[in-house]
This record gives sequence, C-alpha cells and structure tokens, in this order.
Amino acid sequence: MSAPYKILLTENEIPRNWYNIQADMPNPTLPPLHPGTKQPVGPQDLAPLFPMELIKQEVSKERFIEIPDEVREIYKLWRPTPMFRAHRLEKLLDTTAKIYYKYEGVSPSGSHKTNTAVAQAYYNKMEGVKKITTETGAGQWGTALSFACNMFGMECDVYMVRISYDQKPYRKAIMNSYGANVYASPSDRTQAGRNILASDPTTSGSLGIAISEAIEMAVQNDHTKYALGSVLNHVLLHQTIIGEECLLQMEKAGDFPDVVIAPLGGGSNFAGISFPFLRQNLLHGKKVRAVAVEPASCPKLTQGEFRYDFGDSAGYTPLLPMYTLGHNFFPAAIHAGGLRYHGASVLCSQLLRDNLIEAVAIQQLECFEAGVAFAKAEGIIPAPEATHGIAQVFREVQKAKEEGTSPTILFNLCGHGFLDMQAYQDYFDGKLHDHVLTQEDLKSGIKDLADYPKI
Amino acid sequence: MSAPYKILLTENEIPRNWYNIQADMPNPTLPPLHPGTKQPVGPQDLAPLFPMELIKQEVSKERFIEIPDEVREIYKLWRPTPMFRAHRLEKLLDTTAKIYYKYEGVSPSGSHKTNTAVAQAYYNKMEGVKKITTETGAGQWGTALSFACNMFGMECDVYMVRISYDQKPYRKAIMNSYGANVYASPSDRTQAGRNILASDPTTSGSLGIAISEAIEMAVQNDHTKYALGSVLNHVLLHQTIIGEECLLQMEKAGDFPDVVIAPLGGGSNFAGISFPFLRQNLLHGKKVRAVAVEPASCPKLTQGEFRYDFGDSAGYTPLLPMYTLGHNFFPAAIHAGGLRYHGASVLCSQLLRDNLIEAVAIQQLECFEAGVAFAKAEGIIPAPEATHGIAQVFREVQKAKEEGTSPTILFNLCGHGFLDMQAYQDYFDGKLHDHVLTQEDLKSGIKDLADYPKI
Repeated sequence: MSAPYKILLTENEIPRNWYNIQADMPNPTLPPLHPGTKQPVGPQDLAPLFPMELIKQEVSKERFIEIPDEVREIYKLWRPTPMFRAHRLEKLLDTTAKIYYKYEGVSPSGSHKTNTAVAQAYYNKMEGVKKITTETGAGQWGTALSFACNMFGMECDVYMVRISYDQKPYRKAIMNSYGANVYASPSDRTQAGRNILASDPTTSGSLGIAISEAIEMAVQNDHTKYALGSVLNHVLLHQTIIGEECLLQMEKAGDFPDVVIAPLGGGSNFAGISFPFLRQNLLHGKKVRAVAVEPASCPKLTQGEFRYDFGDSAGYTPLLPMYTLGHNFFPAAIHAGGLRYHGASVLCSQLLRDNLIEAVAIQQLECFEAGVAFAKAEGIIPAPEATHGIAQVFREVQKAKEEGTSPTILFNLCGHGFLDMQAYQDYFDGKLHDHVLTQEDLKSGIKDLADYPKI
Repeated sequence: MSAPYKILLTENEIPRNWYNIQADMPNPTLPPLHPGTKQPVGPQDLAPLFPMELIKQEVSKERFIEIPDEVREIYKLWRPTPMFRAHRLEKLLDTTAKIYYKYEGVSPSGSHKTNTAVAQAYYNKMEGVKKITTETGAGQWGTALSFACNMFGMECDVYMVRISYDQKPYRKAIMNSYGANVYASPSDRTQAGRNILASDPTTSGSLGIAISEAIEMAVQNDHTKYALGSVLNHVLLHQTIIGEECLLQMEKAGDFPDVVIAPLGGGSNFAGISFPFLRQNLLHGKKVRAVAVEPASCPKLTQGEFRYDFGDSAGYTPLLPMYTLGHNFFPAAIHAGGLRYHGASVLCSQLLRDNLIEAVAIQQLECFEAGVAFAKAEGIIPAPEATHGIAQVFREVQKAKEEGTSPTILFNLCGHGFLDMQAYQDYFDGKLHDHVLTQEDLKSGIKDLADYPKI
C-alpha cells in the first residue's frame, strides 16, 4: 500500500475549460423539434427559460468552453475534488485490478449537481436574472441550485414534489439554510398547481407537475428564469470538470483507466466523468471503455427505443432525439430517485447509438449489496444512485478474474448517502425488492409516442 | 482573494505523534479517586474496561506518543483534513481579521470522533479484544466507533438512548452499514436494562442507563471492552492530531493564530485543536489564546465548581477533579446534543484553573444564527455543536472591529450538520429557545456532591 489513497490537485490546477464533446462526435446530434410544428427549435424558443449564454452552449461546436473566473472562484470552496485509490476495496475483492474513484460528495450540497448549478446561476446573474425557479424530486438538484443562487445573491424558488417535501424534511431544511424558498408542489402559487389541487386536494404531486409550476413562474415573471439539473447539453458540459480533473489526477498517479463507470439518470454524472476520457479515444487513439449504469427498473439505454420524445413527463420541452421508455413510463419507486428518468440525454443517446459508450442495467438489491461492501471497505456511505456504479465495478472485477486480467477501473462516486439513510435501513430490513419489467411494462410509455416523429 | 481557500497536506505529512500535554502542564492534574475508598485509582481498577495501552496513555508524562502505523494507515482514508481560509466569511463580516477553520467533517462518520475511535479500536485489537461496547446519545460517537471496529474486523455493540434510537433512525442505519449492532437502551440484554424496563416499560432512556448497559456487557464478557468518546486523557490525546496538522498548515499558509476556538462538550474537540498550540505557549513563548465555547444551558466551565465528581451521570466512573455542574445536573434539551455534558475533562479543567485557557458560554439562538450565516458564506452546513465555535468567531471579529485590530482566528469545524437538519428546521420554524439558568438550576446538581471530597 505504498501508493497514496488520495490523489489531490491544488486550486490552481482546477481546469480552465469545460469540454464540449459536440466538437468531436463523429455523428452530430439530431436537432430538438418543436412539438407543434415538428420543426427544429431555435434560440428564441428557449429564451423565455434560459439565459442566452446557456442557449449558445447548448448548440456550440467549440471543443473547449472557458470556465468564467467567478465560477472557478466558487469551485475552489470544494474543488478540485479528491480522486481515491480504493486500496481497501481492492483487498476486500481480492483483485489485481486497480480501482480508483472520484469523490464528488465533498461539495457543499453533497453531490456533483453543484458543478452545473454554480455555472447556471452565474450566467443567469450576468444577464440580469434576479430569481431562478426549479423543481426537485429527491432533493439533490434543489439543494445544489439553492447553494449556487445564494452564492450570487439571487433568489431561488424550488418546487419540491409534495411526497418528497413530506418525507425528506432534511432536504428542505438545507435549502432553507441557503436562503431558498421551498414550496410543496402542487402549490397554490401557480395556475398549474391550483388546477391540480382543485381536482385532487390531497395529491402527492409529481416531478411533471413541479416542472410545470417552475416553468410557469419563470415565464410569467420578469427577471426570472428556469434551470434544469441534467439532460441538456449545457448541463453535461459543466459536469466535464469532473473528468478533466481525473485526467490530471491519473497523470499524477502515473496511471490511465481501461474502463470508466458512472450511473446514468439523465446523463450529467456519466458525461461528467466519461466525456474527457472519450476525447482521448476520439482524438488520441485511446481505447477507454465508458460504461453507463442504469437501474433495471428504468432501462432506457438497454431496453428503450431511440426516437423523439419529450424531455419531461409533462410534455413542456421540445422533442429530443434520445433513448427513451416514453415520457409516460412510470418507473418503480426504487430508492435511487435520481435515476428514475424515462430518457437519456441527447448526447449520451447519440454516443450509445454510435457504439462509443456501453450501457448496462442493474437491479437495486445488487447495488445496495455493493454499496454496503464499499462503505465497510472505504468508509464513505455512497448515495443510492452511486451504488449503481459500484455494482458495475464489482462485475468488472469478477470478469477480470475470470479472464485473468488486471484492468484499471475508475468510477464516479457522485455523492454521499447521509441524506438517504432510509434507503439503507429499508435494505437492511428486507423491505427492498428488485423490479422485473415485463414486455408490457416496457411498451407502456412507448405506445404514447405514436404521434411523434420516428428516427 | 489570491490566498488559497484550502490549505492541504499530503498523506506523508500526517503527523507521526500525538501530543500529550501532561508533559508540559505547570501543575499536574489531581488523581482520579475510587468512589468507595476515596483513594487514587490504579491501572488494575480500569483494566476490566480498557486495554492496558490506553490505561498507560491515560497517565503518561511523555510529551509525544507515536501514532501506530496501522492507525495512520486508516487515517489516510480522510486525513490530513483540509484547513480552510474563510475568504467569503471574512467578506460577509466585513473584517480585516483573518479567519481559518479546520474541517473534520470530511471523516467517514462526519466528525472528529473518528480520530480516537480508530486509535481505541486498534489498541483493543492488539490486546485480543473481539468486541467493543459503548453508548451513544446524539449518535456521532457510536457512528465513529462502528466505523473503527469494522476497520479492524471487531464487533461493536452500541447502546443508543431509546429516544435518539427512535428520533434519529439515520444514525442507526449508518452504524448498521458499518456492521455494528445497535440496541435501543434500556434493552433486555442487560440486568441494568431489564431492571429499568421492569419499573418503566416505556422509558425514553438516558445516557446514564446506556453507559451502565455498555459497561455491564464489557465487564461480564470475555474479550469484550468498553470505549468512551471524550473526557478521558487518552481520548483528548488522540484528537491532538487535529492541532498538529493545523501547525503544519499554518506554516504553509505563512500565518499563525492569535486565537484558537472550539466548542467544548467533554473537551476532546477543544483539546484536539488547541493543545498543540498551547505547547507553543508553554515551550516556545507564543501567546495564542485558546477559547472553549460551551452552551449557556450547560455552563460548567463558566459557572460550575472545580471539584471531584463522577465522569458519568450514573456514577460508575472514578471521581474526577473537574469543573462540573454535578453529575445529576440535567441540561435543557438543546440541539447540540454533544455539548450536553455536566463536566469538563480533567485536562481542560486544570488548564482553565491555571488560566492557560479561556471559556465562554453562548446561547443556542446566537449559535444557530452564526451557523446559518456561515453556511451561506462558506457552503458547509455545520453541526449544531460546531456553531458554538462559529458564534465565538463572530464575537471575536466584533471585538477586533471595536479595538481596531486584525487578529488571525482559527476554529475547529468539528463536523457537518447533514444528520442534524431537524435542528435547523426547528430554528427556522421559531421552535428553538434560549435557556436562562437560575441560581437554583445551577446548584441543582452540585448539592448532590456533598459527600465527595472537595478540592
């Protein structure tokens, strides 16, 4: 164990650029379409929701986009994040493979979401926005945006799905600590919310309703915009700082990964760590495998269809070309709330279609088993989302044993589990189950897409 | 803002020694007494509970005690911890003072407690112990010991005060994740527990009962010992790694503190950061002020008496010479559970008596106000205990403004608040109150000490 546990960088080594994989993809992504006209949407369609600089990033083909000094300055509160060599996990697994993990849980809000939250808040601030609205389900994204808005002295209104609002009071308290306003959704503040409440006063809410409330408030109020925590190109762009740091850290460690692994919900976590390594493949002849891990209960990459669908379950967004189970697909209530998304970001979808990345689906019991083993070996309790990456690491190690190889494995430990301990308790209590989907389940959401363009 | 936010050390720079302030105190501490004979206790009195190496550390006069390689190896999972320059807090407070904080919340269990837990588990392991028992109230200590025992492949039985067991299920789940057994106390596993349950089946338990259960199991079972998370000399010793790292980090920063601040419950957190700086005073002519901050609802240092008292509320320990409110003093249910202790460790008490440290008591509303301001400025949500140190930082800054000085301030941010968000929610909801003690309150515990030796 002479190699160090933590490979650290100094603040001066925080990367100066995000990496825009659109510059290097062999096949460009298909354009998003207006659901009414079925024509490609333009910047003006998105302007009511997002500042122009983010809209530009959404379609940019520049390879590198400079990280503003003001954003880097805030990143310094927790970045560069450590990359760990998992010596104790290697010993536990009795493997000759080398295992590294990047730990994004050191961010103030406890996950990688803060990387894009700060960037989005900054660009909004620069364009005179006073308030950002958003929705949150599990709470990670709302927490990150609350932190970021506070840093720039902006207001933040978070519409939190009613059932999460009631079941996760700690999340609300953290957002309040950062000065954000947190509203149980549906609320009586919006027409969308009032309509729902009128017909069902005791509804537990949904992410779709919360999105519609946040968008309504952004569209109807001056100096107010809306922010999204995953899926869109600019969100994935901001997360690439994770992988850019890993490139530097691998160099310091005198190593290079054979495989990079991360969970995939919308795609920003996976993109964050893998895209800079994919650049090494696309431009420099490397052959890093990039493996996205989705929950078996929401297997858009491995069992979905590549076609146009809405990015949100409410049908407010443009139609996006992506692997999807259909925006009406309702995933089982697994504990990795951040992975319960019907589609995969346009960029990740195109890369999978072009066989530049891999995808695998894993059931939650296997993930929690791996997560507990990891916690015992390395000390850190992983967020339920992150356990999906760990489970795949275990599979890679097993495969390597069978093949007699010693790969170098890197995975993204995207957040800690301190605020998700109910999930672990349920696991220990035997209350968690795997969810095996039937062909009927898998088609339940797709069939509603008949009216939208196929690819 | 050209100075960095984080002053980091490499793993090779983890200090090789703990600092034993007993070597340098102008007046030695008085001996602990057997409550029956009133004579000094010897090693044999403590042997049923603790391994001999820890008993030796308890009375050692060696200045430096080497940290075993096996312990340093585990420390590397999170140590050295970062020391932050609080640029944003300085700006918020509009001060010319320089503010630094050491952040112990990066430890796997989320607080400084892990430093001694690992050391104690190691020495027990070396002496053939298979299981360690302990009690936990708020849960920080139980979590840390669970982590540590797991690292050495030992069993850990945690007796958790019933009301905490019910109100803090997340804590139990974390301990279970590390493989510990967690029992609501009183339990039916011990005679002490069964006796209580027979007379009061619905009792909410107490730390005193939990201690008696843990001790009973340690005494009655082979290869089983007991561990304590604060107060004792060897516990304070192990925490000095915090201050030893700070000495190195201050050197890297080209700075040196005028004042070092930490909350004081039993004393290990305060001792951890301050004792190495007190060595600079005692041996090298420095004049660092060391300020211990206690809750105004439990003011043993500022309003207690220096006299012999039990270390625990149940009366099982030897009589210790310390500042105390009496072991029957029952502090108000403030949210900083880790500070609700009737006495102060023997070492901290003697240092205060000799005017080598300072003490101040602060009400909880002032602490939470400071804690929220800190979170907004620096991002990290502090544990309620830690907010006491922050409140004192705010006072020092105000004093410096009035005096026209620019001191360098260092405080110990001993843990994060992710598992204590109910406290913040109660604060936001206006449910928290200050607790002003009457003279009668202050004497309520002291009057029961009449039969024990005065100093």
